[in-house]
Amino acid sequence: MKTVGYAAQAAGAALAPYTFERRDLRPNDVAMEILYCGVCHSDLHMVQNDWGGSVYPLVPGHEIVGRVTAVGNEVTRFKAGDAVAVGCMVDSCQHCDQCHHGEEQFCREGMTATYGGFDRLTNEVTQGGYSKHVVVREEFVLSVPEGLDLSRAAPLLCAGITTYSPLRSWNVGPGSRVAVIGLGGLGHMAVKLAAGMGAIVTVIGRHASKAPDAMEMGAESFLASTDEAAMSQAQSSFDLIIDTVPVKHDVTPYMPLLDIDGSLVIVGQIGPLAEPVTAPLVFGRRRVAGSLIGGIAETQEMLEFCARKNILPECEMIRMDQIGEAFERMERSDVRYRFVINMASLPAPQAEAA
Amino acid sequence: MKTVGYAAQAAGAALAPYTFERRDLRPNDVAMEILYCGVCHSDLHMVQNDWGGSVYPLVPGHEIVGRVTAVGNEVTRFKAGDAVAVGCMVDSCQHCDQCHHGEEQFCREGMTATYGGFDRLTNEVTQGGYSKHVVVREEFVLSVPEGLDLSRAAPLLCAGITTYSPLRSWNVGPGSRVAVIGLGGLGHMAVKLAAGMGAIVTVIGRHASKAPDAMEMGAESFLASTDEAAMSQAQSSFDLIIDTVPVKHDVTPYMPLLDIDGSLVIVGQIGPLAEPVTAPLVFGRRRVAGSLIGGIAETQEMLEFCARKNILPECEMIRMDQIGEAFERMERSDVRYRFVINMASLPAPQAEAA
Repeated sequence: MKTVGYAAQAAGAALAPYTFERRDLRPNDVAMEILYCGVCHSDLHMVQNDWGGSVYPLVPGHEIVGRVTAVGNEVTRFKAGDAVAVGCMVDSCQHCDQCHHGEEQFCREGMTATYGGFDRLTNEVTQGGYSKHVVVREEFVLSVPEGLDLSRAAPLLCAGITTYSPLRSWNVGPGSRVAVIGLGGLGHMAVKLAAGMGAIVTVIGRHASKAPDAMEMGAESFLASTDEAAMSQAQSSFDLIIDTVPVKHDVTPYMPLLDIDGSLVIVGQIGPLAEPVTAPLVFGRRRVAGSLIGGIAETQEMLEFCARKNILPECEMIRMDQIGEAFERMERSDVRYRFVINMASLPAPQAEAA
Repeated sequence: MKTVGYAAQAAGAALAPYTFERRDLRPNDVAMEILYCGVCHSDLHMVQNDWGGSVYPLVPGHEIVGRVTAVGNEVTRFKAGDAVAVGCMVDSCQHCDQCHHGEEQFCREGMTATYGGFDRLTNEVTQGGYSKHVVVREEFVLSVPEGLDLSRAAPLLCAGITTYSPLRSWNVGPGSRVAVIGLGGLGHMAVKLAAGMGAIVTVIGRHASKAPDAMEMGAESFLASTDEAAMSQAQSSFDLIIDTVPVKHDVTPYMPLLDIDGSLVIVGQIGPLAEPVTAPLVFGRRRVAGSLIGGIAETQEMLEFCARKNILPECEMIRMDQIGEAFERMERSDVRYRFVINMASLPAPQAEAA
C-alpha cells in the first residue's frame, strides 16, 4: 500500500513530504489509518542522528493513534473501524523469558523499534507514525478504550507508559510519596498518573513558574531545586523520584530527598550522568535506577487506567507542516506539554503523485 | 576504669600507646575485655581525617571481640565471661521508625559511631577497639555464638555485616547469580557469605592472580575485568553485584553484566563515582544502590549464620605495635584478607603508668 508521510532524507534535514510503501498485510497484521501522532523528543534526536545509527529516509513517530482499516486473516482481536494505538515497538522475538512475561521492551533479541528498526522477516527499515497509514502485527497493537479522547491519547503511548511503568514497578499506590523532576512531556504525565494512583505528588523544578500547572495536574506541592532551605527541609521525604530530565545532569542534590530504601528512577536521560556522590546512596540504602517504556500488556493496562480515571495529556495540536517549528519549540522546552500532529493535515498519497 | 589503647594524637600521626578512662557502668552497660580487634580501611581514613570531622586523640577500631567482665544492674542478656562483640555503632535514639524496625544504622537522629562519635548522654567522644576494654550499652552488644573462633570473628563485625546485609536485602538465596567486585576485606566476606547462602558466585577483578583464592572461598568463577571478550560474554548474567571497590571508579563497565532488574550495590566507596552512563540502567531497568553495615538484629543473625555454616574471615594476626606497618600494607592492598590485632599484645594499663 502506498502511503505518505514526513521524512528526513539525511541527518538533520528538515522533515518533508515523502511517499513510500507499507507492506502488504501478513496473516497476523493490522493495517491502520493514523489519525494522530505525538511528537517525542527522541524523534528529533533520531532525525539528527544524535545517538548514531539513524537510517534515512527516516519517518519518525511512535505515539500513534488511529483506526483499523483492514486485518490479516489470522487476526482475532481487531476489526476494521476499531480505535487502536501503537507505541515505541512493533515486534520482538516472542519466545524469550522477557517476552513471555510481558516485558517485550527487554526482549533478549532486541525489540523492533516502531521506526528506525529492522523488520524481523524482511530486514526492511521500519517507518514511524508521521504518516497516513501503518501496518503492525496484532500483538503490538493496543486497543484504545471507549471514552478516551482519541485526539489527546497519542502521548500516552510513549510519555504515558514511560512514566506509568516505573510507578507500577516501584509499587506506587495510595499514600506513596512521589516526586517528579521536570514538568515536560514525560513529567506532566508522571504527575497525573501518580496522582491518579493516589500518591502524594511533589514536582521538583528550577522555576516556580510551572507550580500552578503542577497543582492543576494533581501535585500537592512544588519544590524549587534552587531553594536550599526547602531542599534541606525535604530530606528523606520521598519513596520514589521520577527523574525526567533529558540532558546530562547531577542527581546528587536529589538523592538526600529520598527516604531510606527510596529510589530515583531515570526515564529521561540515556547519556552520562554527572559524577554522583555515593554517600547518600550508602548512608540511606538509596537507589538509582533506569526504566524503559513498558510491555504491551502494561501499556494496555495504562490506557484502561487513563480511560477509567479520565487522565489525558495536555496537548498542543499542530499540522504536519508545522513540525519544523514544533521541533524548534521543543528544543527550547516551549511546549505545554506535548505536541500532537493531526494527520488530517497531511495530503492523501494520491495528491503526492500529482 | 582506666584502660590502655593505641591512639592518634593528631591527623595522620602514628598510632601510639594511650591511657584513658572508660566510663563507669550505667545500669544498662556491659563492660568487656577486648581480645581481638579487626583493622578496617576506615580506621586509617579516620586517623588521617580523610572524611573530615575526626577528633583527637582518636582510638580506632570497630570490629571488636572479647569477653564480658562486668554488667550493669539492669542488664539481662549478658553475664561475666560471655563471648561478645561490638561493631560499628554503640547507640542510637531507639525510638524512631528505623530503630524500631531494627535498622539502627539509619537512625533518624544518627547512630553513635563506636569511635569518633558522641555519647548520647555526656557528649564525650567515643573511643574504639584498639584498646584493652570497652563499655557499651547492652542493646549494641552482640553475642558470639558457641563454635565461632574468637580469634577470627572480629572482621565479621564490619566487613561481614556490610556484605551480609545487602545479600539479605536483595534476597540472595540458592541459585542467585552474585558477582563481587574486588577481593579484599569486604569482598572476600561477600564471596563466603553469598556462597554460604547458596548463590552462584563470580569474583570480578583486574588480575587473575586472586582467582585461586576466590575459588577456595566458594566462588565458581573469576571474571577478569580487563578481558573484553569475557566481559561481553558475561552480559546480563548477574542478579546482584556487590561492589567493594573503596576508591573512585566507573561502574559503567559493570552495569551491562546485570540482568534485567539487577542491582549493583556499592558498599566500599562513599565519595564520588566516575560519570556513569545511564543507558544500561534505562535499557535494562538496572539499579545502582548503596548499603550501610546492617542493624543489630541482622548482625546477630549474621554471626549465627557464620557459626552454623562455619564461615570465617581470612585473618592475619598482628601485635598492636605492628599497626603502623599494617596500615601501610593495607594501603597497598597487601593483606590476605583482614588484619586482626591480638589485644594480648597490648600492655596492661598499670604498665603505662610506670
